[in-house]
Amino acid sequence: MKEDDFADWYLDIVEKANLSDKRYPIKGMNVWTPYGWKIMRQIDSYIRQEFDATDHDEVCFPLMIPEDQFAKEKDHIKGFDEEVYWVTHAGLNELDVRLVVRPTSETAMYPMFSLWIRSHQDLPLKTYQIVNTFRYETKQTRPFIRVREIHFFESHTCHVSEEDAQCQIEEDIEILERIAKKICLPYMLCIRTDWDKFPGAHYTVGIDTSMPNGRTLQMGSIHHYRTNFSIPYDITYEDENGEHKHVHQTTFGMSERLVGALIGVHGDDNGLVLPPGIAPFQVVIIPIVSKKTTVDVMGAARETAKVLADAGIRVKLDDSDARPGNKYYEWEMKGVPLRLELGGRDIENGVVSFARRDTGEKGTIDAKDLVPGVRMLLDVISEDMLAKAEEIQRSRIAEIDSMEDIPQDKILRLGWCGCPECGHRFEDTTEFKILGFPYHPEPFSGKCIVCGKPVDKAAYAAHTM
Amino acid sequence: MKEDDFADWYLDIVEKANLSDKRYPIKGMNVWTPYGWKIMRQIDSYIRQEFDATDHDEVCFPLMIPEDQFAKEKDHIKGFDEEVYWVTHAGLNELDVRLVVRPTSETAMYPMFSLWIRSHQDLPLKTYQIVNTFRYETKQTRPFIRVREIHFFESHTCHVSEEDAQCQIEEDIEILERIAKKICLPYMLCIRTDWDKFPGAHYTVGIDTSMPNGRTLQMGSIHHYRTNFSIPYDITYEDENGEHKHVHQTTFGMSERLVGALIGVHGDDNGLVLPPGIAPFQVVIIPIVSKKTTVDVMGAARETAKVLADAGIRVKLDDSDARPGNKYYEWEMKGVPLRLELGGRDIENGVVSFARRDTGEKGTIDAKDLVPGVRMLLDVISEDMLAKAEEIQRSRIAEIDSMEDIPQDKILRLGWCGCPECGHRFEDTTEFKILGFPYHPEPFSGKCIVCGKPVDKAAYAAHTM
Repeated sequence: MKEDDFADWYLDIVEKANLSDKRYPIKGMNVWTPYGWKIMRQIDSYIRQEFDATDHDEVCFPLMIPEDQFAKEKDHIKGFDEEVYWVTHAGLNELDVRLVVRPTSETAMYPMFSLWIRSHQDLPLKTYQIVNTFRYETKQTRPFIRVREIHFFESHTCHVSEEDAQCQIEEDIEILERIAKKICLPYMLCIRTDWDKFPGAHYTVGIDTSMPNGRTLQMGSIHHYRTNFSIPYDITYEDENGEHKHVHQTTFGMSERLVGALIGVHGDDNGLVLPPGIAPFQVVIIPIVSKKTTVDVMGAARETAKVLADAGIRVKLDDSDARPGNKYYEWEMKGVPLRLELGGRDIENGVVSFARRDTGEKGTIDAKDLVPGVRMLLDVISEDMLAKAEEIQRSRIAEIDSMEDIPQDKILRLGWCGCPECGHRFEDTTEFKILGFPYHPEPFSGKCIVCGKPVDKAAYAAHTM
Repeated sequence: MKEDDFADWYLDIVEKANLSDKRYPIKGMNVWTPYGWKIMRQIDSYIRQEFDATDHDEVCFPLMIPEDQFAKEKDHIKGFDEEVYWVTHAGLNELDVRLVVRPTSETAMYPMFSLWIRSHQDLPLKTYQIVNTFRYETKQTRPFIRVREIHFFESHTCHVSEEDAQCQIEEDIEILERIAKKICLPYMLCIRTDWDKFPGAHYTVGIDTSMPNGRTLQMGSIHHYRTNFSIPYDITYEDENGEHKHVHQTTFGMSERLVGALIGVHGDDNGLVLPPGIAPFQVVIIPIVSKKTTVDVMGAARETAKVLADAGIRVKLDDSDARPGNKYYEWEMKGVPLRLELGGRDIENGVVSFARRDTGEKGTIDAKDLVPGVRMLLDVISEDMLAKAEEIQRSRIAEIDSMEDIPQDKILRLGWCGCPECGHRFEDTTEFKILGFPYHPEPFSGKCIVCGKPVDKAAYAAHTM
C-alpha cells in the first residue's frame, strides 16, 4: 500500500508496470524496458518541442572528456571528483590522457563554444541535448530516482551580459511551467544555499516536487554561471565597440527523475496513473465479447480504435484472449488514463462506456460524439490530476517557528536570516535540508528560527530523497 | 571538385554545410552540430517508424558491460579485444570488475534476454535501440565514416528456430529496402566471407554502397547468429512439448555512415544534395524584394511558407538581410532539395518560381496548385536521385576474369569457387577485398579466378573505405 510503505510500493510498481529492469549486472544501471522507455520518450519529445519552439538548437556532444579539459574550472572538478567514471585504457593500451565519462556536459561543450563564438552577432547561443550521463552513486540506488546512468536533457546558453542570462532563466521557468503542466506535476523553485549550489554556478535554482513519504525530490535545476566557466574556457565575444568580453552562461536540466516523480505523485494502490499528455496509450479499448449477442463487438472495437487513432489520440485496442477483468487489472497497473469498454448492449444503445483511471469514475459517451467526448475527458483528467497533486503538495507544507517538535513528514516554511552559520546550525540540529529561498519571494514577517533576527522572506526546508 | 579529390571535397562539405565539428579535443569523437544532427534525427525517426511498424519494441540498455559478461562468447571478445574502451576507475577507486564501453550490445542484452524468455510464447522477441557505440579506431578517422563514437541503431531478435530467424532476416531486408528508398541510396547485399563475418555470427550480410572514389562503404549489416550467443548466455525457452531449447538470434544495424553515404553519393561541387525524405528542410523560400514593386513580397512569402508548413512540408523561409545570391549559395551548400523564389512579378502572375537542387532545373508552379505542385516535385526529385545513383553504381561494376589489369576504381564481379585458399590468394594478389556472394544469388557461368574451377554464382570484390 502506497501510504504504508512508500519504498516497497514504488519498487513494486516499477516492476509490475514493467518500466525498468534492475537486474542488469551493474548496480544502478538499469534497462529501460519498452513501456518505461515509451513514457520517457513521450517526455523527451515534449521537451524537444519546447526547446525548438524557443529557438534552441539540438546538438549532440561526445560522451568522453579529456581530463585536462575537465579540470579547468576548479570548483566543478572538485564537485565531481568522487563520482565520475574514468576511461583509462583503449584496446590493449593505456591512454596518455585519461577520459571522463560525462557527468554533465559543461566541460565537453565549452571548449567548442570558445571556437564557435566570435562576435556579439553569434549571441545568444542557445543549445540543448538529450543524452545519458554517468555518476558513481555510493548511496542506495532506486530506479529513475538514484541511478548511475541517468537519462536527461541539458540546455546550455551564452549571452552578452548577466542581465541577458537572467532573461534566459525567466524563459527556462516558462518552459518548465509548460512541461510541468503537461505532466501534471506541481513543483517548487528555490534558490539553493551557497553550500548546496551546482559546482561552478553563480546561483542554482532547484526544482523540487514532494513525494508521498513527505520527502522532496529534486527533478532538475537551472543555473546562472555568470562568467565562472567562460573565463577558464576562454569564451569571449567582440562587442559593438570592438571590445572583447566574456559571455554569461546558463544551463537548465531535468532528468529521468521526472518518471520517478510521476510514479510517486500520481500512482495509487492499483498501480501507475499517467497524465494524458505523456501516456504512451491515452485510451485502452476493451471489447466485451459475449455469446449472448449477435453484434460484431470486435469489429466495432476496431472501428472505434481507428476513429480515435485517426484523430491523433494514442489508443490501444486490447483484443487478446484474456478475460476483461485481467485486462482491467493490467491497464490500470500501466496507468492508462481512460478505459473504454464496448459490449453488445453499448453498441445497440449507441454509447461507449468509460472508466477514468485517476478517479475510478464511470459513465458513457455517445458513440457519435466519440472524439470530442474522449478529448474532453482527457482534458478533465489532466486538469484534475494537476489540481489534486497541487492540493496535496500544499497540504504537506507546515509553517514552523521553533526547532522543536518539527513534523517529520512535512516541507517546512520558516524564517531564516540567510547567513551560513544559522543555516548550518538549523540543518545540523534538525537534520532537515534547507531548500533555499523561493525564486519568487513570498511575503513573510517573522524571525530567523536560529538567531531570532527579524526576516521578511520565507525559506523552505525538507527531508530530501 | 568532387571528381578530382574526393577526400578533400568530402571534408570541405562537412565543414561548409556545418554537419559536424571535428575540432573536439579527442580525435575521431566529433560534435554533431545542429544541421548534421537534424539530418541524423530525420533518419532515426524513419528507422523508428519502420521498426515500430514491424512489431519491434524500442529499449535502451546500459552503456557499460562488466568484463565477465563481455567475455562469454569467445570469438566475440577476440574480435573486439583491441578496439574497446575500458572504464577501470570510478571516483577515486579502482573498480573490482572492469567495464567495457559498449562497442555493440549483444553482451549487454543477452544476459537479460536469458531472464526475459521462458516459453515459446515469449518468442519472437523483437527489440531495437538507437544509441552511440564506441570503438578505438586506429586507422585515419573521417567524419561519419570512421569515428570513435558512432551513432547507430541495432535490432536484436530471438526465435524458436533457425528458419524463423531466417524469416526475420527477410523482414530486415524489406525494412532496409524501404529505408534505402527514402534516402535514395543504392546498396548491394553480399554474404561476407567467413574471415570477414561479425565476431560470433553464423553468417553476416554486408550492406554496401559505392562512393565516388570507386571504393565501397559498408553502411550496415545483418547477422544470423544461430545459437552462437544463446548457448554461452543461456537463452532458452520451453517449447510446446516441455523441452528446453536455445533460441536462434539475429541482429540488424546501420550507423551514421548513412550520412557519410548521403554526402558522397549525392553531393556535387556546390555542396550537399539531400533526399526530400530526410532533408531537415525540404523547401527553402527566398523572397526577392525589390524597390521597383509595390507588391508585399515578404507577406506573400510568409503566407506561402505557412501553407506549405500546414500541409506537413518541412519549409524554411529565409527572410534574412543577405542578398538572394548569397542565400542561394548557402542553401545549395546545405542541400535543400527545392528552392522557391518569390518576386513581385511572380506574385502578379500568380506563380512561384522553383529551382531543383539535384538537376538545377528551373520552372514555375501555379500559386493555386502550390501544395500538390511542391509535393509532386519532391517526389520526382526523390525518384530521379535514386535512379541516378543506381545508374552510377551499375556503371561502377566491372566484370573481370583475370587477376591482371584490374580496373582500380571499379567494383569487381568475378568467379570465385568459395574456398578460403582461393579467396585469400585473390585478396593478397590484388589487394581488393572480397565483399562476398550476393545475398540474392546472381546467375553466372564462369571459372574461379584463382583455381579455374567452374562456378555458377558470381562474387563481388572492391576496394573498401
